[in-house]
Amino acid sequence: MQSGLDSLIARCQPGWSLPADFYNHEAVYQLDLERVWQRGWLFAGHACEIPQPGDYFTLDVGTDPVIVLRADDGAIHGLHNVCRHRGSVICTEPAGHARRLVCPYHQWTYSLDGQLLACRGMQEELDKSQFALHRVHTREVEGLIFISLAKEPAPFDPVQEALAPMLRPQGFRRAKVARAVDYLVQANWKLVWENNRECYHCNANHPEYIQANFDHYNADDTPPRVRAEMCAVVARSEQKWAAAGLAPTHKQSGMTRFPDAERNIWFSANRTPLIEGWVSESLDGRQVAPFMGNYTDADVGTLRMRTLPNFWNHSSCDHAVSTRLLPAGPQRTAIRVWWLVDAKAVEGRDYDLAKLIPFWQRTSEQDWQICERQQRGVNSSAYTPGPYSTFKEYNVESFVRWYLKNVKLET
Amino acid sequence: MQSGLDSLIARCQPGWSLPADFYNHEAVYQLDLERVWQRGWLFAGHACEIPQPGDYFTLDVGTDPVIVLRADDGAIHGLHNVCRHRGSVICTEPAGHARRLVCPYHQWTYSLDGQLLACRGMQEELDKSQFALHRVHTREVEGLIFISLAKEPAPFDPVQEALAPMLRPQGFRRAKVARAVDYLVQANWKLVWENNRECYHCNANHPEYIQANFDHYNADDTPPRVRAEMCAVVARSEQKWAAAGLAPTHKQSGMTRFPDAERNIWFSANRTPLIEGWVSESLDGRQVAPFMGNYTDADVGTLRMRTLPNFWNHSSCDHAVSTRLLPAGPQRTAIRVWWLVDAKAVEGRDYDLAKLIPFWQRTSEQDWQICERQQRGVNSSAYTPGPYSTFKEYNVESFVRWYLKNVKLET
Amino acid sequence: MQSGLDSLIARCQPGWSLPADFYNHEAVYQLDLERVWQRGWLFAGHACEIPQPGDYFTLDVGTDPVIVLRADDGAIHGLHNVCRHRGSVICTEPAGHARRLVCPYHQWTYSLDGQLLACRGMQEELDKSQFALHRVHTREVEGLIFISLAKEPAPFDPVQEALAPMLRPQGFRRAKVARAVDYLVQANWKLVWENNRECYHCNANHPEYIQANFDHYNADDTPPRVRAEMCAVVARSEQKWAAAGLAPTHKQSGMTRFPDAERNIWFSANRTPLIEGWVSESLDGRQVAPFMGNYTDADVGTLRMRTLPNFWNHSSCDHAVSTRLLPAGPQRTAIRVWWLVDAKAVEGRDYDLAKLIPFWQRTSEQDWQICERQQRGVNSSAYTPGPYSTFKEYNVESFVRWYLKNVKLET
Repeated sequence: MQSGLDSLIARCQPGWSLPADFYNHEAVYQLDLERVWQRGWLFAGHACEIPQPGDYFTLDVGTDPVIVLRADDGAIHGLHNVCRHRGSVICTEPAGHARRLVCPYHQWTYSLDGQLLACRGMQEELDKSQFALHRVHTREVEGLIFISLAKEPAPFDPVQEALAPMLRPQGFRRAKVARAVDYLVQANWKLVWENNRECYHCNANHPEYIQANFDHYNADDTPPRVRAEMCAVVARSEQKWAAAGLAPTHKQSGMTRFPDAERNIWFSANRTPLIEGWVSESLDGRQVAPFMGNYTDADVGTLRMRTLPNFWNHSSCDHAVSTRLLPAGPQRTAIRVWWLVDAKAVEGRDYDLAKLIPFWQRTSEQDWQICERQQRGVNSSAYTPGPYSTFKEYNVESFVRWYLKNVKLET
Repeated sequence: MQSGLDSLIARCQPGWSLPADFYNHEAVYQLDLERVWQRGWLFAGHACEIPQPGDYFTLDVGTDPVIVLRADDGAIHGLHNVCRHRGSVICTEPAGHARRLVCPYHQWTYSLDGQLLACRGMQEELDKSQFALHRVHTREVEGLIFISLAKEPAPFDPVQEALAPMLRPQGFRRAKVARAVDYLVQANWKLVWENNRECYHCNANHPEYIQANFDHYNADDTPPRVRAEMCAVVARSEQKWAAAGLAPTHKQSGMTRFPDAERNIWFSANRTPLIEGWVSESLDGRQVAPFMGNYTDADVGTLRMRTLPNFWNHSSCDHAVSTRLLPAGPQRTAIRVWWLVDAKAVEGRDYDLAKLIPFWQRTSEQDWQICERQQRGVNSSAYTPGPYSTFKEYNVESFVRWYLKNVKLET
Repeated sequence: MQSGLDSLIARCQPGWSLPADFYNHEAVYQLDLERVWQRGWLFAGHACEIPQPGDYFTLDVGTDPVIVLRADDGAIHGLHNVCRHRGSVICTEPAGHARRLVCPYHQWTYSLDGQLLACRGMQEELDKSQFALHRVHTREVEGLIFISLAKEPAPFDPVQEALAPMLRPQGFRRAKVARAVDYLVQANWKLVWENNRECYHCNANHPEYIQANFDHYNADDTPPRVRAEMCAVVARSEQKWAAAGLAPTHKQSGMTRFPDAERNIWFSANRTPLIEGWVSESLDGRQVAPFMGNYTDADVGTLRMRTLPNFWNHSSCDHAVSTRLLPAGPQRTAIRVWWLVDAKAVEGRDYDLAKLIPFWQRTSEQDWQICERQQRGVNSSAYTPGPYSTFKEYNVESFVRWYLKNVKLET
């Protein structure tokens, strides 16, 4: 593919969408797996999903099954979910609890950090130390778990430093999953990201979202009235939030700039006010669950994060919504959306799923439909790359640059 | 594929069925898309399906989504259903009505003839004239719509001249769709055509069809009694129909010869009598709907048309049945069958679907099953091409010659 | 693939599982079809399924449809189920009865031994002797039918000699099928065989099976008590069975050694005692149907057979269970399991399916699940071949050697 890739890349025009092969070709997909998904840091899930030593969950990165678990010392470990004997998957459930990892095939038994403890029936001379489960690098930052399948992953400390202070007040470590929904979207993962990286499509597609947010206004079309509103709410927030140690970090309409291919910024977080009168990304803007984390006042705007290639999160005072992408084919992305609330909140008493989930369930599903329609058109022999709006799609353009830089990288 | 194609073609024997690769190989399928489907004239649908300016329907030629619509001036236009911005499909429904074509993603707005009218949010300097939707050539002949994805399509005038006078009395422009049924047949499109090009299989497979028609008798097996019947009905028809300006143009048993690869005849129409006592291709041969077009007498035989690579039609005095093929994979063909009646006919009062559709619904489904069985056998490593009957499969042989001539054509 | 295959084979390590490509790659699958499935002798079914001349059944070896039938002289024939005219499948049902094989497309008519008898509608000069159905070699051994798609198959006589005396007492020719169940298992056929070739996995996965059998004990872990039990039951059996002309031929715990790549042994049969108190592989070890074949006493242990690449059978005094594998893709195997009883046994009166089938239905389904889990793990980029147990997986290692020897064979 390298020579094919070179000629494909030569056809890319800055500021324009990619040639179709990037969105639907098996060979590019394999390259994406190799150079993006098996090299980068991937969001895996939440630390609160595996509170006790022995708790685990599993996920599939393409066709790579992975276990994420909490070890005896409380640390989080990642392991390839592949027995070193004959390759069977070891943990067969989406999540569970285990004191030892026992392969269901021949009961090869591993410790929670992957050491082969027992393999009854094998010859004496087998050196167990050579058959530990292959490790997956993991890092936890304030309750969010990231993994890397790379042998030598990129440094994670900059992410830690950038995200930890922003994340801390939200209290992800003291959260619980109120609901998770899985989607299999018939679109290349990059189409899903391109959709996420602009709010140009919001006006017509996200009636719920635009009631609460300023993102869909840009330099070209923010009316003076909205600009004034935004200024007012930012000013008020700066003053009011200071006491709680919070500060708005995104103060204009439009989306914050992300990613930054040149400075290798594939992670970011910011706090931004909601539209006056909204304290939560719920259908009516009212609080729908008890405060999360350190919050003592509903008026904290929203905390937003995103890390490439597979995670974004929007958090209000009362709940947080995480979205994780996993590649599942050249034209298929497996997506999970989680709704989290404070660990002590009780369903029925403290929150009601019917109020908690519709805002992001609808917004997400609106996006998946958009992406599937785009995939159908991109597959046409008549598709030709088109220009991005400099006002509204600057982040799509950044994403494409970031992607091309990564996919060009040879080891 | 060219070198592979050359050696494949070298293995073709005149008068014998094709080597298996032609019927099941991905590379040949891609070549078929390129050299047949993206070059030829394809039947798309009926003008009566889009009577008003702004009415449209969509179809997929392989993975090429296309819009066919009636523009403000009443003309029919074809457009690639692919936004010039980021490639989304624009019209997402099978059919509908629109004054403008608005992409659901970012509302780029096109006129009904594909000109980009508005793209709110884009930079000023964007030259809208450079972003019209890619055009698809269209031609209408007496209510039938044909499209071509080719940049410079083959001349259509010969088709117009050949079909228009035959079509006119049937009144397709004043027709309406009584019913349409979609099939996804697990067989290569060429197997479907080969099936259509002979009635050798009719005796055992089409009990309804052979009651009404003379096609299944050939030079080798038309009994004197049938020959006499056919002569009598032709003679009577010639005399009687003259008044109405109609004439039998196919006067023998067996199928009319089609196509003619050497003279590049990929379209034809003819009128032929039905068996004595039958005035419609219905289960009992009786009229099942009001007269279509200019007919004032039920005894008009049947009008039949076919155009390669994707259309055939059988029309009686009272209804017409159109069949459209679209390629959907090396071993998959998407087929739509329409039943049309006069526009003024009212279901329940003037016609009853239970009487209108079974003749061709059964005949069609019998054929799809045949094709799927043939596909299974052709996929066998034991399959070897076999000889066509010179009496009964002359048109299959012609089809194969026509096909090979087309697929060999390089631009 | 040959050069790719050479390098793949160079990566194989004796005594270790195969590199992943062998288990999931399309090119290796095609090679397996060519060098194993289209060359070897395949178990097709039972002679008792087609007792009368004209009885037939069909099967698909990969994409090769095959007919197995009993001809007029009572002999069993195999034919490619592909018409010599245009390739349609001829017998469209899983099983049936026919005096002649009539292609449903154009009624080309073949005798039961494949000669073209009639092809109404073809030109006179067609030489019918040139259009017999392509033959598939068949051999019957005591009621079991084997086929070979090879032009010149390997000698079958050694199989006949080895299996016939073992098979005879079981009376497969006088049997009937009580039930057959079809499975489509999402695993490469070699993973299914590797699973079958060891009982290392039995303890944890086959609670029913290990109650009845000694297979799961090996040199490393047979406790003295079990060894004594086995000796006792073997000694008793040797003495008692002698009268009936039966003899235990597998007298230790663990599985009999099979296959033998060096001596080209891809077939074997043996008789071995069950655990004291069990006379049938049923849930409680009791007889669940009348005696089969020549048995007059329930205490005959079990007869076991296996032939590569696609058959194994376990038979008790009262019933026999046959398992047939057919390749259905790089990661897919079509499996049929049959339960046979004496031909005169009447369901409801002489046997009850609820007692007859659970032992092997559960054991089989437990294995299919294991294989599907292994396929998932083997597909991981983290999968690396692992070592076989010399105590417990000697037969897996033999199977791999046998397979590599076959796949390396060029014509």
